[in-house]
Amino acid sequence: MADLRFFKRAGPFSLSEIAKSVGGRLKDEADANLMIEDVIALASAGEGHLSFIDNRKYIGAFLTTSAAAVIAGEELAARAPATAAVLIAKDPYLAYAAAASLFYPPPAVTPGRSPHAVIDAGADVPDTSRIDAGAVISDGAKIGPGSVIGANAVIGPNVEVGADCHIGANTVLQYCVIGDRCILHPGVCIGQDGFGFALSAEGHRKVPQLGRVLIESDVEIGANSTVDRGAGPDTVIGAGTKIDNLVQVGHNVRIGRGCIIVSQAGVSGSTHVGDFVMIGGQAGLTGHLKIGDKSRIAGQSGVVKDVPPGATIGGSPARNMRDWLKESAVLAKLAKK
Amino acid sequence: MADLRFFKRAGPFSLSEIAKSVGGRLKDEADANLMIEDVIALASAGEGHLSFIDNRKYIGAFLTTSAAAVIAGEELAARAPATAAVLIAKDPYLAYAAAASLFYPPPAVTPGRSPHAVIDAGADVPDTSRIDAGAVISDGAKIGPGSVIGANAVIGPNVEVGADCHIGANTVLQYCVIGDRCILHPGVCIGQDGFGFALSAEGHRKVPQLGRVLIESDVEIGANSTVDRGAGPDTVIGAGTKIDNLVQVGHNVRIGRGCIIVSQAGVSGSTHVGDFVMIGGQAGLTGHLKIGDKSRIAGQSGVVKDVPPGATIGGSPARNMRDWLKESAVLAKLAKK
Amino acid sequence: MADLRFFKRAGPFSLSEIAKSVGGRLKDEADANLMIEDVIALASAGEGHLSFIDNRKYIGAFLTTSAAAVIAGEELAARAPATAAVLIAKDPYLAYAAAASLFYPPPAVTPGRSPHAVIDAGADVPDTSRIDAGAVISDGAKIGPGSVIGANAVIGPNVEVGADCHIGANTVLQYCVIGDRCILHPGVCIGQDGFGFALSAEGHRKVPQLGRVLIESDVEIGANSTVDRGAGPDTVIGAGTKIDNLVQVGHNVRIGRGCIIVSQAGVSGSTHVGDFVMIGGQAGLTGHLKIGDKSRIAGQSGVVKDVPPGATIGGSPARNMRDWLKESAVLAKLAKK
Repeated sequence: MADLRFFKRAGPFSLSEIAKSVGGRLKDEADANLMIEDVIALASAGEGHLSFIDNRKYIGAFLTTSAAAVIAGEELAARAPATAAVLIAKDPYLAYAAAASLFYPPPAVTPGRSPHAVIDAGADVPDTSRIDAGAVISDGAKIGPGSVIGANAVIGPNVEVGADCHIGANTVLQYCVIGDRCILHPGVCIGQDGFGFALSAEGHRKVPQLGRVLIESDVEIGANSTVDRGAGPDTVIGAGTKIDNLVQVGHNVRIGRGCIIVSQAGVSGSTHVGDFVMIGGQAGLTGHLKIGDKSRIAGQSGVVKDVPPGATIGGSPARNMRDWLKESAVLAKLAKK
Repeated sequence: MADLRFFKRAGPFSLSEIAKSVGGRLKDEADANLMIEDVIALASAGEGHLSFIDNRKYIGAFLTTSAAAVIAGEELAARAPATAAVLIAKDPYLAYAAAASLFYPPPAVTPGRSPHAVIDAGADVPDTSRIDAGAVISDGAKIGPGSVIGANAVIGPNVEVGADCHIGANTVLQYCVIGDRCILHPGVCIGQDGFGFALSAEGHRKVPQLGRVLIESDVEIGANSTVDRGAGPDTVIGAGTKIDNLVQVGHNVRIGRGCIIVSQAGVSGSTHVGDFVMIGGQAGLTGHLKIGDKSRIAGQSGVVKDVPPGATIGGSPARNMRDWLKESAVLAKLAKK
Repeated sequence: MADLRFFKRAGPFSLSEIAKSVGGRLKDEADANLMIEDVIALASAGEGHLSFIDNRKYIGAFLTTSAAAVIAGEELAARAPATAAVLIAKDPYLAYAAAASLFYPPPAVTPGRSPHAVIDAGADVPDTSRIDAGAVISDGAKIGPGSVIGANAVIGPNVEVGADCHIGANTVLQYCVIGDRCILHPGVCIGQDGFGFALSAEGHRKVPQLGRVLIESDVEIGANSTVDRGAGPDTVIGAGTKIDNLVQVGHNVRIGRGCIIVSQAGVSGSTHVGDFVMIGGQAGLTGHLKIGDKSRIAGQSGVVKDVPPGATIGGSPARNMRDWLKESAVLAKLAKK
């Protein structure tokens, strides 16, 4: 159960309230009036607790759970223990997310400005925002209503942050325009110079980086990730894209809508990534590529060529996933001879 | 020799004092009363200096060193130059660590609170701790005796830091409980939301992250590393584990005691790592795995399956180290035909 | 065109002024008096704009550009659209860099100290430097003339920063000496303890890290990169070397002059990298290696052996590039049978 020093729980809610809220339906024998007090993982759940099964790896815990109720897909509903009411959902993880948000709604933002924040007179900071201690907001910067600027964050001149954003502690934002409802976790650096040099034996010459970073709405960026500003064109991150920790996005990169980029991946300069692309952890994309919509790039892939829409690739250098797996198998067989 | 602007040296100490302190013994002809003034690498050492040989790569420097004394293993003791007294140690590097700590003990913490720190009235900060300028300590946070909170570090609400910890400058700690004698280097981010989304074409839904990060005692975490809090269970880092720079630890990960995790490695969500596991640089572990005690994972490995205790693995996807090396050799041979 | 909220443009300049400034020459039919107002990428350029072609990937945009003038190499000059004046340069990207710097010179530093900076009485901070809000400058630190210390940056005791440096927001500098004209982007951590432990089943023992970080002049280091201080010897980064974001440099590493190290690469302890070496993104170098001058290491390489001067290597474990490519091709062919 969540540590109530850190989290504030709502509820209890009846099973029928929860089912309605998450868009699922109760299995016939479930008691619609059963009161649920918390959401908890299968193995630890007990009386008054709602849990969920999504990943088949946890089927053992599902079969023996003491949870009062479980969210499950149609195909597993019949296998729940008799002691557990079942809430059937088309997408159990999505339903769990909704249920968890019901019990643990994001805390409301209490507006205000820390007296220890440093807000330039030329910055536009609405009364509905919250500015934490040590935050530095520069001249010309504009913060949207309901947004939070974390402690010791640095907002550069003329940067725009939209409404209802959470800008984490110790982030640094420069040369960027950020949409609404974005979450930037601590330590994120946005808008610094891209890695642009004209190489020369007499000394590499710095190329002025004249673009911005445009981050559309509903984007999340993980801790200590870095996004360079464009060299001339802008670097763009599309609406609803979610980026994990320690990810690098180079200059002029365009990332589409709804992409998922897992930790420690890197996208080199001027590569254009389509919509709903999934990039696995530690994957690296070289520069000037086109990555098709809905393609999937396995973790640690080294992508050096354009990727067609919908393709699944892996390996370094990356190739069609099937080819890569077959090559691995063939080589293993050869080595066993 | 260490730059005395940055380091404060103790001593001199006699060879016998040093031998006693580090748990070694002097080779017969060594003068127990020889005074040693400093510890220095083999190639630069001279009169009054103690050096050590641990890595065979440096045997050349050992054979010709001008050091007054050298820490060496039994097997190399006879090969030291006649001018060098030899301190024989079972583990020369461990003995060197002890000797270096004798000459350069960690500086004592001078307690105090910078007037430029921002400490909430509801935080529990003992007089024996040191809080540097710009540090922000939130309501309900608890700092242990003798601990240092570096400049511009941000300690979130209700976070607990144990005794004698060093929390580096510009770190951000949220939703976490930290044991005693931990060292967090600058820029570390602990306890932010894990990367938890229920994916959907209508927009990925954020899953509330309801766990904490528990860091046991004697843990060290390198600069700009990130540790996400659990989604429901906690993320746990076991006692005595040492983590290098730019490492990612995902939500719900459990890392055992005494592990070594080298720079830029990443451990994905819900993977459980045993005790005394070694994970090489840039290795990546996918989620939901079990990594056995004392296993060794080579640098850049891509681990996608459970690893048995004591195994040594490498490659991407990772396999038994011997198989991987054999496959590489077979392929190289084929390509040469 | 650059967003004038963020950038300040100089000019206009005539083509002949530009040609003189960048060291190129005008193609015969070009109008030397043509006034140019801005530098813009080929695809977006129009009247009054200067663009450039360097990467053959963009030849299509070159052939159809509406730019008033284009910087191109000798071999492409004849193929420019008739509407575009051509400025012929030996190295078009270098010439573009010069032209862009003409239109967008780096903003002059306005000296001053934020009243919200925390500068120790024992620090040496000249009037010509600029110290931003929340920066913490410790006792004995020395800042060179014309240098900028960004907001919330932390400069440790006795650290030296040379002249005309830009030290980014939220950086942390300890135990280091930095040359002139260096640029450290936000979130960089320099000089923390290297990852030095004497491993032991009874608990890994910390080895005192007694060296410094020496950064020579004209070095650039990307956002959230980390450079550990030496264990005894110093960690050294040679003059003119450019390091991208999220790069790790371990203790005792020596990097030569004019190197290029791309994002997320890592160099392990005690490895010596020569001059003008190029290290691709996500490449990893193990410790105690010698990397020859002008060698080239492909992205994601895993370097485990010394590299001869001038060599080009790739793969993990890394080998001669030709061998690596041949092995990949042979394996692909086998798998297709």
